[in-house]
Parts: sequence; C-alpha cells; structure tokens
Amino acid sequence: MTAKNAFYAQSGGVTAVINASACGVIETARKHKDKIANVYAGRNGIIGALTEDLIDTNKESDAAIAALRHTPSGAFGSCRFKLKGLEDSKREYERLIELFKAHNIGYFFYNGGGDSADTCYKVSQLSEKMGYPVQAIHVPKTVDNDLPITDNCPGFGSVAKYIAVSSLEASFDVRSMAKTSTKVFVLEVMGRHAGWIAAAGGLIEDQGIPVIILFPEVEFDQEAFIAKCKAKVEEYGFVTVVVSEGTHYADGKFLAEQGTRDSFGHAQLGGAAPVVANMIKDALGYKFHWAVADYLQRAARHLASESDVEQAYALGVASVEKALEGKNSIMPTVVRESSAPYKWSIGEAPLSEVANVEKMMPMDYITKDGFGITDACKEYLYPLIQGESYPPYENGMPKYVTLTNAPVERKLPDFEI
Amino acid sequence: MTAKNAFYAQSGGVTAVINASACGVIETARKHKDKIANVYAGRNGIIGALTEDLIDTNKESDAAIAALRHTPSGAFGSCRFKLKGLEDSKREYERLIELFKAHNIGYFFYNGGGDSADTCYKVSQLSEKMGYPVQAIHVPKTVDNDLPITDNCPGFGSVAKYIAVSSLEASFDVRSMAKTSTKVFVLEVMGRHAGWIAAAGGLIEDQGIPVIILFPEVEFDQEAFIAKCKAKVEEYGFVTVVVSEGTHYADGKFLAEQGTRDSFGHAQLGGAAPVVANMIKDALGYKFHWAVADYLQRAARHLASESDVEQAYALGVASVEKALEGKNSIMPTVVRESSAPYKWSIGEAPLSEVANVEKMMPMDYITKDGFGITDACKEYLYPLIQGESYPPYENGMPKYVTLTNAPVERKLPDFEI
Repeated sequence: MTAKNAFYAQSGGVTAVINASACGVIETARKHKDKIANVYAGRNGIIGALTEDLIDTNKESDAAIAALRHTPSGAFGSCRFKLKGLEDSKREYERLIELFKAHNIGYFFYNGGGDSADTCYKVSQLSEKMGYPVQAIHVPKTVDNDLPITDNCPGFGSVAKYIAVSSLEASFDVRSMAKTSTKVFVLEVMGRHAGWIAAAGGLIEDQGIPVIILFPEVEFDQEAFIAKCKAKVEEYGFVTVVVSEGTHYADGKFLAEQGTRDSFGHAQLGGAAPVVANMIKDALGYKFHWAVADYLQRAARHLASESDVEQAYALGVASVEKALEGKNSIMPTVVRESSAPYKWSIGEAPLSEVANVEKMMPMDYITKDGFGITDACKEYLYPLIQGESYPPYENGMPKYVTLTNAPVERKLPDFEI
Repeated sequence: MTAKNAFYAQSGGVTAVINASACGVIETARKHKDKIANVYAGRNGIIGALTEDLIDTNKESDAAIAALRHTPSGAFGSCRFKLKGLEDSKREYERLIELFKAHNIGYFFYNGGGDSADTCYKVSQLSEKMGYPVQAIHVPKTVDNDLPITDNCPGFGSVAKYIAVSSLEASFDVRSMAKTSTKVFVLEVMGRHAGWIAAAGGLIEDQGIPVIILFPEVEFDQEAFIAKCKAKVEEYGFVTVVVSEGTHYADGKFLAEQGTRDSFGHAQLGGAAPVVANMIKDALGYKFHWAVADYLQRAARHLASESDVEQAYALGVASVEKALEGKNSIMPTVVRESSAPYKWSIGEAPLSEVANVEKMMPMDYITKDGFGITDACKEYLYPLIQGESYPPYENGMPKYVTLTNAPVERKLPDFEI
C-alpha cells in the first residue's frame, strides 16, 4: 500500500480540548508514515478544503504538536459553514473530491459536532459514488454534549468542570456578602437546546449551596421560579441561579435573544442572565450580581478536566487507528464501562446513526420541579470532571502554542464559496 | 502581660485570598496563646461586632484554619456597612469599645479596603480617647488594588491572573472562529474608579493578541475606539476588548449603569460589555461575543496567583506579629524590592496616611492613545501573577472549607444598627 495523505479539519465552535484531538490524530499519523505521508489541515475548517487553503502539518515540530494537547481553541482555525445536502451542495462536495485527488488524500478526519458529522457522512457516500473512495472518520467534539451514541463529547467535561467550579466559587462569594448585600447570583451558560452545561452547575448542591438551574428542556415558568428563589433565600440567605442561554417560555420565546443568527441559522443568544436577575429584583427586591461566561467557559483550558483531555486525545488516536484498519463512515465513541470507579473505553458508531441526531438530557436527569438535577445526573456528570489537567506556565501565563501553519502548494483553480 | 482576645473581621467585597489572610492571622495568634487567648471573628464583618455576633475561632480545628489558605470568599461573612465619622457614628464606635471591654479584646484586625482602613483608623483613635486602648491593625485587601503605599493589594494579583489567562484563552477562541464568525470578543471586568484589573488584560498583547483596553481613567471616545477596533480587525482578523465596568464618557456617564447603589453609595455597575459589543456591531458590522466575569473573577481561587496567596498570608501573619510588637494604627504593606527577579518584603504604613486615599493607575502605565498598557505597567503586573497556587481537589471539585462558625456567648444588651 502506497502512503496517502490525510485531511484534518476543525469545525464549529472550538473547545478547550479539540486541539488534544488534533494532537492525537497527528501524533498517531506520524507513527505510520508508511501509510499516512502527511496530515493536511484545513485552514479555517472545511473552507480551507474548498478554497484549497491547506496547512502542512509536517512542518510543525513534534514539540509543537505535543503542545496542542494543552492548548485551547482550534489551532488551524475553525468555521461556521455548513454543507447542505448532496443535491444543494453538489458543487462543494465535488470540489472536495477534486481536492482529495489533487493532494492524494485518502483519509478525511472531521472534528466537530452534529452538523459536521452529517458533512462527514456525505463525504463518505459521495466519494464512494464518484469513484475516489476516501475513508471519512468523524472525530467527535462539542461542548453541547449532544452527539448520540457516545457516552459524552470531548469539550463537554471541561466546560462542565469550569461551570461547576466557577458556580461554587461565586456561590461562596455571595454567601459571604448576603447578610447586607448581594443575595442572588445569576450565571448564564451555553446550551441552546440541551441543558448539559447548565446541569453541571447543579453539582454544587452537594457542597451545601442552594442552586436553581434553568434548562432549555423545561419551559420557563416565571411564577414557580420566583417562588423557588424566595424559598431558597429565606432558607439559606442566598441563592445561585445557573441559566442556560436557551431557556425559553412556553411559546418558544427565549429569555434573551440578540436578534442575530449564525450561518447555520441558529439564533445567537446572550443576555438571559441580566433578564433573570432583574426579574428577581423586581419581584423580590433582592440585590443581585450576574455573570455571562460565554467563551470563557469553552476556552478554559486552565481548568480542563483530565478525563476530558484524555478522551479527546484518545478519540483522535482512535480515529487514525480505525482508518488504518480500513474503517469508513464512522465516529469513534466513548463507552462508559462504569461510573464508580470511572472506567471507559473507545467504541465506534456508524455515521448514518450519528448524523443529524441530537441527544437531549434524559428527563430523569432533571428533578420533578424542573429546577435541579437528579442523583442519576450527578452519577453521569462526576466522572466527566475528574482530574485536573493543568497546562504548563511561564512568567505567570499558560504556555499555549501558536503553530506556524505553513501553506501547502496549491494545485487547483480558484473556487468561489 | 495577661492574654487578651483579638477581634478579626472581613469587610467589603471578598476575594480569592482574603481567607489566606485570615489563616495567617489565626495561625499566628495560635502560636502566641500567652498573649492572644482567642480570635473572635465578626460574623458578617463589623456588623458582627455591633450586634455582638462573634464567632469562636478556637472551635475550629487546625486543619480547617489551614484550609482557609486555599478557600475563596469570606469564611466568616463580610458586609457592606460603612461606619461614618466619629460624630455621625459615635453610637456605633462606642458600642465597639463596649464590645471590646466585654470580651477582653485588645487587638482589632480589620481586613478590607479603603473604607475599612478609615474605620480601623477611627477605632484606634477612639479607643485611645475612651480609655480602653485597642491595637487596631488594618489587613489590606482589595481586588481594586487602590490602597496607597503598599505596592499592591492582596486579591488583586489573583484577579489579574484570572483576567489575563481568561482573556488569552477567549482570544485564542475568537482567533479560531474569526474567518467566518466572531471577530470581536468583549470582556467586562471589575474596576469602578481604577483600571488595574482591566490593565491585566493588556498582558495578552505579549502573546500576539490584538487587544484594546477601556480604562475608567480614560474618558471614552467612541470614534477613536471604533477606529481602533477596525484597524485591529483589518490587521489581525479579530480583536479582544477588555472593558472596565467604570468606563465612562467625558460627562461622567457610565457606559452601563444598572441604577442601583450599594450602602457605600457606590453605583452598582454591569452591562458595559453588551453596550460596547453592540456599538461595534452597529458601526462595523462585526459578529461579536461578550462575557461579563463579575464574581467569577474575584472568586477564582482555582487560578490564584501564588505570589498573591503568599502575600495575603504573610500580611495576616505580619498583622499579628506587629500587634504583638506593640504597633497600633498601622497597615502592613507589600514592599517591592525588585521586579526581575521578583523580591518583596513586608513593610508598614500609618493608617492616617492610608485612610481615604485612593491609588489610581499611574498615567505612564497607560499608552498615549489610552487603549493599552505600557512596558512599565507590564513590569509592574507580571510579578503579581507569578506562580499557580492550586487548591486540592476531590471528586473533580475543589476542597474548599466551610467553617462551623460557632457563636461566642453574648454579654451585652441588644443593639439596633
């Protein structure tokens, strides 16, 4: 077998550990130079493939690639650009196959969430059909934790740890101040459709903190919420509220919507925290503080979960190993063997079963009143935030790597996106 | 000399390391039982003294007190309650002296910022005058870093580290997304009058990140700001903006004001980030994300600066040692011996020179255009964020201590605040 090249790209919102997956892919490919000559990374995700803007990862030192394991964000650039169905985006899919041919690419590693799994699946189908078969492997990644089949998604464990720890710390702060000042702290977290991230805030209940979670899965009932806040403050003197950006009323209206949409057509949310805080102030008169974590949460490599980093890396490794075993159109998955002690292994799922399926929080993870998490949810979450995988520091700052990202020489005509 | 008791209280907004100072005070007092029989902590700060709600710290184990060193927030509760001048608040000051007499208190350790230094100073004056002399020592603390004479204030170094690291991580995130999505990230940080915290965001320039800082010291010039954003995005493809909550227009109007005031009469701010983000969107059309760090920044013990933790602890130790040397009406300070390598020692300042003096950023720490920090500022800041002092973890969460806070038996009649 002659060596082929591999294509790797990062897609959608980046995470604290997506580069750990990139590290796993590239380090494993480098161990198999007889089969994978080079890993070409798409500059800014799939756009780099369409515009033939490829990055020559062979130009990066082993040390630089190793440093990806502790560097947050997408080292090659990511994008929000969704390929549509084969009919609507035929031109783009054909361009991908042309690129693969031109650069002798036999492996397509696509590191992303649900939308990207769909693209990856279509690439595998089309390449087959067009007589230039490419092994398409989807490397899972999403802080939203909403990919099906896999026990959890790389990126989520670290956000969950960040939100749980930050909620705990801020709650200790409010508790200190509550006698004469702030009684309510509201933290807004990511999660448009699934409340996984918000759920992580519920773990602080185990540390004696009164906490109310607002999930996108539960229609927002203002009256019940205010009553709950009042009860908590009367009992504990303070309360912490963790509100998911996707929390909405029964009619579907979000608590806060900025009115802009991204290219996937998703509404760009933000600002639920001040809405909730002012709602409490108006109804109960409590002094409040609010925070919006936004990118801080998904970029927080300084507080990454060790199990998350290990899984992100292992899934990158497994993607290449499975490709070399001849696998195609699959996504390696995390399989939970047991929660306590936490044991996991790597499995795999066919992309036909992954693409366009969104995993919601099981309803038995949410308490009956809709404002908290159950023991089953806690049992699920704790293993995912285990361990602290700290980056190295220099002069007080983390030593994150910025790659040189040298371009691969172009061979194709221009392509307008 | 017969042993007396000490009074210790935490005042104003709490920090990631104020408990490290408490740890220093109590551990040192415990080494001198012959002179300090017990440390009584005020429950919720000075309010605990006025209402005779004292905490018996002798009831806490050595391990619990040691754990204060790595626990954020105020373990005994803090308060926002300012004693006015001796004339206006005579009743309260007299009550304090009564309390000191009733509980044989000879040492008054007040852990706070500028307002608290003033209270501490008045206590020392009044106790003298009333014939029950108490040694009043102010233990410095404030994330605002605005106490005079001391090189820096405990609490600030950890916030600075948190803001610098978080800004860096979020900037890496934006850089990854900028091609097709977010081009501007706006982070709102604390700082009503002094831009010390915002300045810490400026350190990421040394990591190749285009960053614009908005200081309360610099009148906000919207036109110049928008031009600066445009130039950065055109050069780098993205920009990070760190905006101080106290940023205001030439007429003194804050970029965002929630309209509420705390009991010190300070306006409660918040929401400058969305204002700035939308301003950029309207003028330049860039997609944005914004975060408001709020309590997360000052509570972030998980990312505390080691030099900050060591200084907070050392200042607690020095407060007791100086009291035992007979000192009164002083504040121990941090004296910078050299920046590189960083060397510091403990000095002291008379409270008469500390009370009601606010230290602003030196203007030569801000670049001429008003949007960045100078090398002199960086030289000042880097030592303060040196080292990582991580808390211990258990089951994925930090092991922060919650004290039992057992009450001391009351001896005085009730007192209405």
